Amino acid sequence: MAHFKVNQKDIFFILKDQLNYGSLCSLERNKDLNEKTLDMLVTEAISFARGVVDPLQEIGEKWGVKFENGKVSCAPEFRKAFKQYGQDGWTAAARDTKYGGQGFPHMMRIVINDMMYGACQAFNMAASLTHGAAHLIESFGSEAQKRLFIPKMFTGTWSGTMCLTEPDAGSNLAALQTAAFPEEDHYKIKGSKIFISWGDHDLTENIIHLVLARIDGAPEGVKGISLFIVPKVMVNPDGSARGPNDVVCTGVEEKLGLHASPTCALSFGSKNECIGYLCGQANKGLSHMFQMMNAARINTGVSGMTLASTAYQNALEYTKARIQGRDVAGKKPSDVPIIDHPDVRRMLLCMKAMVDGMRSMIYTGAFWQDYALELSDGDEKRHYQNLVDFMTPIIKAYCSDMGFRVCEMAIQCLGGYGYCKEYPIEQYLRDAKIMSLYEGTNGIQSMDLMGRKMRVNAGAPYFAYKTEIQKFLQVNKEHPQLGENVEHLSNVFKRIDQMATELKDKMTADPLQWASNTYPALLAFSEITMAWRLLDMGIIASTAMKQGKENDFYIGKVLQAAYFTDVTLPHTLATVETCLREGREVVEMPIKGF
Amino acid sequence: MAHFKVNQKDIFFILKDQLNYGSLCSLERNKDLNEKTLDMLVTEAISFARGVVDPLQEIGEKWGVKFENGKVSCAPEFRKAFKQYGQDGWTAAARDTKYGGQGFPHMMRIVINDMMYGACQAFNMAASLTHGAAHLIESFGSEAQKRLFIPKMFTGTWSGTMCLTEPDAGSNLAALQTAAFPEEDHYKIKGSKIFISWGDHDLTENIIHLVLARIDGAPEGVKGISLFIVPKVMVNPDGSARGPNDVVCTGVEEKLGLHASPTCALSFGSKNECIGYLCGQANKGLSHMFQMMNAARINTGVSGMTLASTAYQNALEYTKARIQGRDVAGKKPSDVPIIDHPDVRRMLLCMKAMVDGMRSMIYTGAFWQDYALELSDGDEKRHYQNLVDFMTPIIKAYCSDMGFRVCEMAIQCLGGYGYCKEYPIEQYLRDAKIMSLYEGTNGIQSMDLMGRKMRVNAGAPYFAYKTEIQKFLQVNKEHPQLGENVEHLSNVFKRIDQMATELKDKMTADPLQWASNTYPALLAFSEITMAWRLLDMGIIASTAMKQGKENDFYIGKVLQAAYFTDVTLPHTLATVETCLREGREVVEMPIKGF
Repeated sequence: MAHFKVNQKDIFFILKDQLNYGSLCSLERNKDLNEKTLDMLVTEAISFARGVVDPLQEIGEKWGVKFENGKVSCAPEFRKAFKQYGQDGWTAAARDTKYGGQGFPHMMRIVINDMMYGACQAFNMAASLTHGAAHLIESFGSEAQKRLFIPKMFTGTWSGTMCLTEPDAGSNLAALQTAAFPEEDHYKIKGSKIFISWGDHDLTENIIHLVLARIDGAPEGVKGISLFIVPKVMVNPDGSARGPNDVVCTGVEEKLGLHASPTCALSFGSKNECIGYLCGQANKGLSHMFQMMNAARINTGVSGMTLASTAYQNALEYTKARIQGRDVAGKKPSDVPIIDHPDVRRMLLCMKAMVDGMRSMIYTGAFWQDYALELSDGDEKRHYQNLVDFMTPIIKAYCSDMGFRVCEMAIQCLGGYGYCKEYPIEQYLRDAKIMSLYEGTNGIQSMDLMGRKMRVNAGAPYFAYKTEIQKFLQVNKEHPQLGENVEHLSNVFKRIDQMATELKDKMTADPLQWASNTYPALLAFSEITMAWRLLDMGIIASTAMKQGKENDFYIGKVLQAAYFTDVTLPHTLATVETCLREGREVVEMPIKGF
Repeated sequence: MAHFKVNQKDIFFILKDQLNYGSLCSLERNKDLNEKTLDMLVTEAISFARGVVDPLQEIGEKWGVKFENGKVSCAPEFRKAFKQYGQDGWTAAARDTKYGGQGFPHMMRIVINDMMYGACQAFNMAASLTHGAAHLIESFGSEAQKRLFIPKMFTGTWSGTMCLTEPDAGSNLAALQTAAFPEEDHYKIKGSKIFISWGDHDLTENIIHLVLARIDGAPEGVKGISLFIVPKVMVNPDGSARGPNDVVCTGVEEKLGLHASPTCALSFGSKNECIGYLCGQANKGLSHMFQMMNAARINTGVSGMTLASTAYQNALEYTKARIQGRDVAGKKPSDVPIIDHPDVRRMLLCMKAMVDGMRSMIYTGAFWQDYALELSDGDEKRHYQNLVDFMTPIIKAYCSDMGFRVCEMAIQCLGGYGYCKEYPIEQYLRDAKIMSLYEGTNGIQSMDLMGRKMRVNAGAPYFAYKTEIQKFLQVNKEHPQLGENVEHLSNVFKRIDQMATELKDKMTADPLQWASNTYPALLAFSEITMAWRLLDMGIIASTAMKQGKENDFYIGKVLQAAYFTDVTLPHTLATVETCLREGREVVEMPIKGF
């Protein structure tokens, strides 16, 4: 049964009406493209997600992963789909053509991920990690490394991973202990990694691990970490296999969800024979890895949002079909579909606004990213990079936490059936929960936002954000239909801006109190970002209606914007006030008082 | 491994310091009891939950339920435990002694359920349903029915169910179609029921189904529903088996959680040979069943709260033991347990307050219930019954939704490990999700609260509640330590009181708009109830400290009260404002706009 559902009009409204994504084609890198080719890519991604990826969601859940004799095996359908995904160009759609990419704008990777994750999160993680690992080699590897590894990764012949976490170095990478000992043209790697997504499997002939390790004698802490390419199977310069490397999967986690995605413990060099190749500069591994981590953070937000989107679309379909109860107003002669019940509609409207707002927030960030990467050096480029930097923790944390929340609401719309595996939503809920946890917990994201992003380069990331939102508020404050809502947002933003300053000072003056408020502060920033994106869409829809295009689709955009701002911003303000309060209960609570 | 964890001091603080539950022993029904016997019951319940019930959580999850040839079988350990539960008196602890009960105050059933559900929800549902079914017979059955069924149900020889839902009559019981045809001294029952918890199993020799059905020729709608006793195995007047009745399990749901609890589809009379006995008055079945349903609603709240409690205690233990990262203030020489990180502490304090507040809310309601049931007729009795009536939908909806939320937060405290089955929390999360859905979805609870409970008997349930909370506010508004928080609550209550009036009028004037706001309104009422109970505990703790009993336990009670009121009430007020807004987006949204 097909579970992946997406409203194509919503997608294109953001891409075209809100962002005018075709304008990216005027960037030098995209000069051979035009808006139509982008549109085609989007519709093809939806077809691929529907035809190839969606069925994997159910297959993978039933099969899970099998771990026997140190080897992981997956549902056979995954192998076929992974190959096709690479060969059809989905992995490298947005990569440069030099090593086999298709040269689409960077943001198209996000749009593709939206569709693919929304159809099957577990599967698309394999593809997404492969993309990220190959891109890391593309950015920092030697020419020989690039030629050897990237093409086979892009075409789905080999896959990739990122190996960061260790048993005692989870969120705290400074404690990382995996060691690398120089030897000839390579290093001997020794150490253990845990929580490695797609760390072992039988989808591909080889797995290229990108591993953080410490070169023997390197400085302590994060400044002594280097990045290594560690293939599961050793390869000759021509790419042919040369026998196994000393990398062993020692265990697979049993998890709440994502049952089709093997979460592995890996042992590197248990026989002292694990060979790795330095990628990029020695001791710069963490900064190199941040390219992949930042992309992974955005993708985590994409996952949360799109699982919510699919869950919402499934709930919507159910509530239209399920007839039960009389209408509350007592006006209709017979029982009604439950979408007529106001409390169900409340949940649907809330979900709709959440999904649309999150998607717009993510696509906007992705759109900015293209300018950040492709403009020539200068203020404008820096401005876009600052915007992306500021948005990354917001996208990661908010879309993961709220994606889960939307899945919860979707279950609620189905009543008891929402709890049953007969419907797909409970699986989306389970799959979505990991997003708040991996790629840096949401607590860590909040410290990144309210700490680093407020202070680095004299607060440049925040100032870039502030400039953009204020521009929007200024332009639209007298909008005939949504002007009051814009004014409302404007007032809340003023207070948030004060909060940002106060908390920035508190970070040094009273760091414990500061850290007890970073998560609520992130939530407040996320909510105003949502309101901004939703109002922007509402205003565009309002204009379209004035031009005679009055229809339910546009009305929906206006209503969701008004509803979201009206019911959310009072809570945002409440959150801001709690972030500024003097009460120190969190800090002062004695451990025995818990 | 033992997962059930409870802070006994927290339990007794509510029972003794806050409620003085020993005072229930002055009621005529409890005159042979004293506080010590109650205390003993509590500690023994904790031991039983720990020793017998807790292991079932893991066993049941692994075994699940097997459905073969129309029969359900469960983990063998469940059979043994169920028998022991009955024989040791847990099922009937709070029932009258006439049919084998132990005559403890009614509220002790809630305290027992707190422990047992907190250890294994799936298992205790069987016991709780058996209790509810037997108690229904005790309340409405004939003397012969009582003698035949109750003792064997109380001792765990037989079990019981409640059979309400049908494929087209979920939340809407008016549509119920199961039919009963009179024949000699009994009825022939014909129909299908779904979502019947513990509807079939091999724990006991017999299952006594309490079934809602429509006597042939009865009025349409809810006024034509009667209650029937339908045993799975026919029994002779002496209780011996007389061969199978025509009740067949036709399917078992696959669910998100509660894997050890069989959720059955039952077919009654597929061979026209299903015999049932009228219980109570014809056509009064729904009102009879409401006794069990109201108890089940409270128990649903208990389940949500206690799963949250167990999840919190597990998270607390983990965060004390897990060492990772430097302290944010940079003052400690080495890595710290993560309970030292302020964002983790924020989650712990929030969970602590949620759990303690919900438990206090529930125990308070249960305490009032004893007076409602046992006082002689008059204003006081009515007052307590009104309080219980008002609190029931709040306890059901809030504790279920927030119980789930606390489990989510507990997962977050564990980082990636929270997602792994190696730790018990993900199971509590999955088990807890059903609470928002069954026994009337939380949307339905909100309509009960803001509709019926505001209007029945000229709003007597609400006025009883208002009287109680205002008494508290009046007495404590100048409390030296928490007076400001009381004042804060007082101000929010005034606004909520206005909202109650406005919404009550809107119910008839604009029912769709009214119904689009009942859930947020329920949330607002729940939050002030939480603040009230937490402040009450905080004030009691503050007094204890003044009497020289200063210790971390009491400090925790004061801090959680201050924290909860300060960070929650601004949101409560925001919610109230959104309930009163004029925007009609929820109602006006065109279906094609979603």
